[in-house]
Amino acid sequence: MGFTPGNISVYHLAFRHRSAAEEHPSGIKLSNERLEYLGDAVLGAVIAEMLFKKFPYKEEGFLTEMRSRIVNRDHLNKLAMKLGIDQFMNGSIDPGAKNRSAYGDAFEALIGAVYIDKGYEKTKRLILKRIVNNHIHLDEIVGQESNFKSKLINWSQREKRNVEFEFLEEIENMGKKLLRVRVLLDGQEISRGEDFSKKRAEQIAAEKACAQIGI
Amino acid sequence: MGFTPGNISVYHLAFRHRSAAEEHPSGIKLSNERLEYLGDAVLGAVIAEMLFKKFPYKEEGFLTEMRSRIVNRDHLNKLAMKLGIDQFMNGSIDPGAKNRSAYGDAFEALIGAVYIDKGYEKTKRLILKRIVNNHIHLDEIVGQESNFKSKLINWSQREKRNVEFEFLEEIENMGKKLLRVRVLLDGQEISRGEDFSKKRAEQIAAEKACAQIGI
Repeated sequence: MGFTPGNISVYHLAFRHRSAAEEHPSGIKLSNERLEYLGDAVLGAVIAEMLFKKFPYKEEGFLTEMRSRIVNRDHLNKLAMKLGIDQFMNGSIDPGAKNRSAYGDAFEALIGAVYIDKGYEKTKRLILKRIVNNHIHLDEIVGQESNFKSKLINWSQREKRNVEFEFLEEIENMGKKLLRVRVLLDGQEISRGEDFSKKRAEQIAAEKACAQIGI
Repeated sequence: MGFTPGNISVYHLAFRHRSAAEEHPSGIKLSNERLEYLGDAVLGAVIAEMLFKKFPYKEEGFLTEMRSRIVNRDHLNKLAMKLGIDQFMNGSIDPGAKNRSAYGDAFEALIGAVYIDKGYEKTKRLILKRIVNNHIHLDEIVGQESNFKSKLINWSQREKRNVEFEFLEEIENMGKKLLRVRVLLDGQEISRGEDFSKKRAEQIAAEKACAQIGI
């Protein structure tokens, strides 16, 4: 990572999966989950600022979407593999519990550990220099297909299935109107989505529908 | 707030609601929404760390829950009112668009502005000293009723209505199993919830049901 750790034990903890964690007398499991929670928040702030500065003329919706593409579990798992985090976890993860998301979780925990050890500015520099510059391809992320509604409709046409988006209801939520829609596949509901915008509610429902169908 | 602003224009922007924003030649609205996005991330990181350090023997689930109680829209709106943010927004919000959440949004935007102007450490100090110490009552937040399931069931018994929780399905999501449940009120579905834990999925569904019913 390009620096000398101060407090080495916090880094050891970052690679300790719950499945291999010991119990503290207080009853808490000594796993990387607390560090993951912290790292997730720090990573979110650093990526939020990076996008804020890289895209001065893009609105909040764009920035939020790009951020969630960068920090989603799947992308973090891939980043963790590129960084070789799996190699650090031997012995600190029960083989039965091995799943790819354990690596993304440990990656976030590692960021939490760096934050505890080195503070915000150094953690930010590390994320930007070692991770964003080397491993995050912003152009690809921006260009990624995110239109789940058209993905779903294209699929339904290919497969000769009937997909419908149906508006369900409007829910008052803290003074704003939340819209709920659902996706019907051959007349059967397969997913729902809610958002303040109907377009986004449909995207959310469509994304879940795609995951359901496995496309 | 206890400090002298460097760049005053970013603070002006923080109080500019979308309804009163001008359009930049690039087409973007010059409102506080981008700063709100940034402030939300910075506030999230600061609160995450504060809780991490205050509760060394609590697990991630507890920390996440407490954080969401602090940074939820409703609590932020209340904080914004305590800080007098409404008074700064006269003229920078269309009276027709006035809703309480505009103040919580501006509060987050203000944090984004401080971050741009002063950096992370100063923003963190401001949040901890001026906001957490003075206006956030951690004991109350920890003790808050969060059990929406029992709230809902108590209500149904008082009102002699029939509430059921029904397990719907298991969804594979990136290697983890997402559970979906729903709440039936007198046999009619009124909400759904999804989570990796059945207990939390039920809480999510129950919380939505409570909002639906208005209790």
